[in-house]
Amino acid sequence: MVSEDIERLIALLAKLPGLGPRSARRATLSLIKRKETLMQPLAKAMADAAEATKTCSICGNLDTRDPCKLCSDPRRDPTIICVVEDVADLWALERTSAFRGRYHVLGGSLSALDGINPEDLKIPELIVRAQAETVKEIILATNATVDGQTTAHYIADKLEELGVTVSGLAHGVPVGGELDYLDDGTLSAALKARGPV
Amino acid sequence: MVSEDIERLIALLAKLPGLGPRSARRATLSLIKRKETLMQPLAKAMADAAEATKTCSICGNLDTRDPCKLCSDPRRDPTIICVVEDVADLWALERTSAFRGRYHVLGGSLSALDGINPEDLKIPELIVRAQAETVKEIILATNATVDGQTTAHYIADKLEELGVTVSGLAHGVPVGGELDYLDDGTLSAALKARGPV
Repeated sequence: MVSEDIERLIALLAKLPGLGPRSARRATLSLIKRKETLMQPLAKAMADAAEATKTCSICGNLDTRDPCKLCSDPRRDPTIICVVEDVADLWALERTSAFRGRYHVLGGSLSALDGINPEDLKIPELIVRAQAETVKEIILATNATVDGQTTAHYIADKLEELGVTVSGLAHGVPVGGELDYLDDGTLSAALKARGPV
Repeated sequence: MVSEDIERLIALLAKLPGLGPRSARRATLSLIKRKETLMQPLAKAMADAAEATKTCSICGNLDTRDPCKLCSDPRRDPTIICVVEDVADLWALERTSAFRGRYHVLGGSLSALDGINPEDLKIPELIVRAQAETVKEIILATNATVDGQTTAHYIADKLEELGVTVSGLAHGVPVGGELDYLDDGTLSAALKARGPV
């Protein structure tokens, strides 16, 4: 129907999360229509990023250098390590600007169903980092899912004898959320953890 | 937060239709995770397509050659021209394999609100093509929207004195559609155009 060059581009774009064959076709057309302003810069940005991005050997973040910007920033507190499942979670926390410590990306969560064991994740590396003199607190910021919480409990067990403080994110009412739409678990957690106004 | 290379890629991906800042971030992460299998081939496919795609000077289709594959195919009937608003519509019709004639892409529809006049579209070019001896029928396959139908009527008026047959797509019940959910206009059009079973 259309030329092979365009077909190949559609097929590859359709592999991105959030794009199906139909929206990949729409995206391709809009790319071709904005060849100079979008398509060529995007092709270049993609090739550059593919060339340059590395996984940080300390925390597992993605950056153009190793150790990454966060690990090599002397203003960030080396006594607190925040443990997340994925790089996307690290980025989400960084967007809040609420945390000025270091990170540790596990690369997933423990899952008996999917056959993911502790040694498939960066848990041994975390234990090694936690043994350093400087580290005082480990924040377990895995997802509030069954797998995420299992992972957090497993890590908390392993860290118990090391003498570091192990903490987790607070559960409660999301900011801007309506009580009526909240699930019972969140609501009762928020009630239990109530504090002075 | 993240390196400039990655930020630039996210910003450019977010400009694609169907992707917002959040899904662009997800797409970028999935690209970086599949660097060899997806990111590098996609960057190359995009650069290749940007280099190679041209607009066909006859019909307005996008292809790697000019005239395009459809215009230079001797097996396609040169006596029928199907007029569409956009390249996406041409691709949609080609996917059905139901049409073996030639196309003419207008590049949009007439719109008083958006200030789009006949000379902004490829309507003069269509009149010239329709004057050729070989052309017997023009199918107006513009969208069934107000603007699309206005465009079709305008073109039909212009073609009246040329002695070619001017036809339009049939209106009716979509295949697989339920009557209950159809709008009144479509249903009454389907009733008027009823035929033997």
